[in-house]
Amino acid sequence: MDVTIAVDAMGGDHGPHVTVPAAVEYLRSFPGDTIVLVGLPDVIEAELRALKVATGPHLLIHAASEVVGMDEPPQQALRNKKDSSMRVAVNLVKSGEAAACVSAGNTGALMATGRYVLKMLSGIDRPAIATFLPNVKGKACMLDLGANVDCNAEHLLHFALMGSALASAILHKENPTVGLLNIGSEEIKGNEVVKQAAELLQQSDLNFYGNVEGDDVFKGVTDVVVCDGFVGNVSLKTAEGVAKMMGGFLKEEFGRNIFTKFLALLSMPVLNAFKRRLDHRRYNGATLLGLRGIVVKSHGSADSFAFHCAIESAAEEARSGMLRHISDHMEKWHHSEQQKAVVS
Amino acid sequence: MDVTIAVDAMGGDHGPHVTVPAAVEYLRSFPGDTIVLVGLPDVIEAELRALKVATGPHLLIHAASEVVGMDEPPQQALRNKKDSSMRVAVNLVKSGEAAACVSAGNTGALMATGRYVLKMLSGIDRPAIATFLPNVKGKACMLDLGANVDCNAEHLLHFALMGSALASAILHKENPTVGLLNIGSEEIKGNEVVKQAAELLQQSDLNFYGNVEGDDVFKGVTDVVVCDGFVGNVSLKTAEGVAKMMGGFLKEEFGRNIFTKFLALLSMPVLNAFKRRLDHRRYNGATLLGLRGIVVKSHGSADSFAFHCAIESAAEEARSGMLRHISDHMEKWHHSEQQKAVVS
Repeated sequence: MDVTIAVDAMGGDHGPHVTVPAAVEYLRSFPGDTIVLVGLPDVIEAELRALKVATGPHLLIHAASEVVGMDEPPQQALRNKKDSSMRVAVNLVKSGEAAACVSAGNTGALMATGRYVLKMLSGIDRPAIATFLPNVKGKACMLDLGANVDCNAEHLLHFALMGSALASAILHKENPTVGLLNIGSEEIKGNEVVKQAAELLQQSDLNFYGNVEGDDVFKGVTDVVVCDGFVGNVSLKTAEGVAKMMGGFLKEEFGRNIFTKFLALLSMPVLNAFKRRLDHRRYNGATLLGLRGIVVKSHGSADSFAFHCAIESAAEEARSGMLRHISDHMEKWHHSEQQKAVVS
Repeated sequence: MDVTIAVDAMGGDHGPHVTVPAAVEYLRSFPGDTIVLVGLPDVIEAELRALKVATGPHLLIHAASEVVGMDEPPQQALRNKKDSSMRVAVNLVKSGEAAACVSAGNTGALMATGRYVLKMLSGIDRPAIATFLPNVKGKACMLDLGANVDCNAEHLLHFALMGSALASAILHKENPTVGLLNIGSEEIKGNEVVKQAAELLQQSDLNFYGNVEGDDVFKGVTDVVVCDGFVGNVSLKTAEGVAKMMGGFLKEEFGRNIFTKFLALLSMPVLNAFKRRLDHRRYNGATLLGLRGIVVKSHGSADSFAFHCAIESAAEEARSGMLRHISDHMEKWHHSEQQKAVVS
């Protein structure tokens, strides 16, 4: 299925220098899809000229006269910049002209714009940020990664419902396993919110595995890992920090002397394969779940390859019918809740 | 300064098979120190015989007739096993016969026993679990790692005071920097507890750096990283999980075919140096801070080398006068609080 993706061409630390080449590169891999570059036409056209690429039926420019600053307060962006590249890209999802949008802009502003323009899916209070992380078996979906710092048990349940729908769409699994991030696998462990969430998850129709710990995320114990946004964000950044430190140590050890440098040269294909498996750019593109539309947030500092990966995520989610999956899950859950209410 | 360390010889997954050889090995490195092996004399003696080592003035056996099970509820262990190797080891610290004790036993029971026997330092409500983690600049102290799942701002301040004292004793720094683990470096970020804790830390005499994120822990941004036990535990285990996954990937890539295996053989010294730098066993030994005595918890599954490292931590803390450091910090803080109260 071919899809149309709206790209906020102005967002991110590097704006069109990154977003435009990424879009062009994406279309080389997926020539059937269509990209709408949203932003200042002059700037986008200049980038396209530099790449010797012309617009066409699969590569369109949609004008937007404003740009949301990376540090701009979300509410201000929402109120004052109605013609920002971010807002217009989200509008294209709302109107159905695009199946999904991607932005490397300010997370808070993107979240606020998504909520305001697209609205929340029925039954969901709060959007969550989800991404896929590599593990020894493949990859797993983790959420929330920072949208909600204080959560109650029901929020965690909603995250689980949404994460399960996302994982089932992307991993092509009928009934993905869901783990609740905790500090011990025993049921008695954890804080009150997590204990209550475990009860709700037990009662739900989800394939609830039980508690998982920080290291289980990378052992691939479950397909989905659920936590509040504070814990998720710390865990994600811890993982990034450790991976970077280890990469640095390996480089240092291979750079110690002329002999080790020679070994590094010989081992280059092995070391590159290793690097590729952990390349965080391949995991760029977090989904803002809970909205009535697909909005993917790229890392602000993404380079062209990383942004390309974020576009791929958006397209994959659009193709997979993820939104319907979530709605179905929510409906089933509400239905079973009503049944319980009738019975009791 | 020579110190005496009480070792709970029966604790951990492997008991005396690990603790006794570790103690013997430790004394080879630190012949001036003294180790008291606490537990069932027959079993300990059998281990010593197997190692062809005799007791002497630096290697003593102290009888204890009971053993706390790894899954035994802490309160039950405390009530019913007054002659457990764990309890007797802590008693030796209380009586001053040992400067510190080390146990690989049940964390909850060790914590409960420590609190009951040694009591808390004045002004501290809750003990915290602290450990040193490697980073690109050396190592930093992180706490709490799981003793307290629900914390208020004042608890986080106490952790900071204790962690700063520990870091200053171990890292030999006059005024170690303290970071507050959060999900963004801006002051407006984070949950309510963290925001309040930041204010308390600002007002304290500590060298408060501000907020740090998960990746900053491994960049070595601060000497101390403070967080609640839930977040700290998840972060610690995430780090372990990522390190293990990356080690596995590296092994896989070097094991792909005969050529890569040959490269691995050639690169062995480099790969071993890399492995050594990240060897989690070197970081074994978490300190239960806040007690009126030094209690170090080894990982339950520690091998002899890892347990040796935990004994080293305990000895280093005993030598450094860490407890006095903490008391001084607490007194200074209480004094400045009283001053403020008088002024206002």
